[in-house]
Amino acid sequence: MAQAIAGPEIERLIQLLARLPGLGPRSARRAALHLINRREQLLSPLADAMRVAAERIVVCESCGNIDTSDPCTICRDMGRDRSILVVVEGVSDLWALERAGAVRAGYHVLGGVLSPLDGVRPEHLALDGLVARAALPETRELILALNATVDGQTTAHYVTDLVAHLPVRVTKLAHGVPVGGELDYLDEGTLTAAMRQRTAV
Amino acid sequence: MAQAIAGPEIERLIQLLARLPGLGPRSARRAALHLINRREQLLSPLADAMRVAAERIVVCESCGNIDTSDPCTICRDMGRDRSILVVVEGVSDLWALERAGAVRAGYHVLGGVLSPLDGVRPEHLALDGLVARAALPETRELILALNATVDGQTTAHYVTDLVAHLPVRVTKLAHGVPVGGELDYLDEGTLTAAMRQRTAV
Repeated sequence: MAQAIAGPEIERLIQLLARLPGLGPRSARRAALHLINRREQLLSPLADAMRVAAERIVVCESCGNIDTSDPCTICRDMGRDRSILVVVEGVSDLWALERAGAVRAGYHVLGGVLSPLDGVRPEHLALDGLVARAALPETRELILALNATVDGQTTAHYVTDLVAHLPVRVTKLAHGVPVGGELDYLDEGTLTAAMRQRTAV
Repeated sequence: MAQAIAGPEIERLIQLLARLPGLGPRSARRAALHLINRREQLLSPLADAMRVAAERIVVCESCGNIDTSDPCTICRDMGRDRSILVVVEGVSDLWALERAGAVRAGYHVLGGVLSPLDGVRPEHLALDGLVARAALPETRELILALNATVDGQTTAHYVTDLVAHLPVRVTKLAHGVPVGGELDYLDEGTLTAAMRQRTAV
């Protein structure tokens, strides 16, 4: 449609923007106009930031995090507890835990979870690296910070079996009532888990 | 937050993405990861498309449309009816009318609508150019395709007064029931307008 009225360059920009999560064809057009109307403040800086990211971002060979250095900032951080490895599905989960400041430890990004339906098998995940790191003498605990979904829990079981021969403690995140959450809106599974794992006041 | 874990380059990309309409901080992080995970297919092409857009897109001196040429593709299109000028608030409205194939005519982009509350006064809009084009001998009709809001209709009245001395017909878009729309969900103003402007079957 738009290529006939605004030239192929704008149409191409819209088509690429529409492939971002959260943007559809209509919001991609709005985003393109927004960018074009803010050329110096936004369009040029964003083009440069993307170019820099495309050229400089690498995946950390050790933990699977993304950064502009390998080993990544987290793996190079000497202030972290090296005896704990937090196992996550993806980098977004790592970011979420870091934003929360939940733990100052190392991470291991699996790059997915096992999913027979989606054809994700063990060889698609960074499991060899995880077992190797779990076998290091300094590693004492693996925290499985995986989603509380069927695939996430299947993966947790699989990882637990994989490292069962190692002298490493395996833990997982607690289930319970979200902070600020109302009981009335919670599902029965969460309420039952929260009741069973109740803590002393 | 994230700058401590993923380097300033990724944090800058997220901050710039968060300034796009429709993306907030959380979806900007998702978009950044999506881009980084698709470096060759999406991140690099999008960086290039933005660079091209930043360098080559110009505003048409005649009509205010954006394009990579001036005059723009529409102003150079000899197949359009030169006697009609469609007056729109912004380029997004021009695109919407062109997608609909509603009219094959010239356009004039005002670059906004009069809005005392937002401090938008006549000198902020492309009104001089509009009057000059309306005064051209070939121009016979101005179609005011402005939003049916208070500001849009104020602007329509203002434009009508501005060209009142010229031998040009001024029209506006019809009000009525949207195609596919249900009467039950329409406001009284639209229903009244649709009734008053009813057409013969």
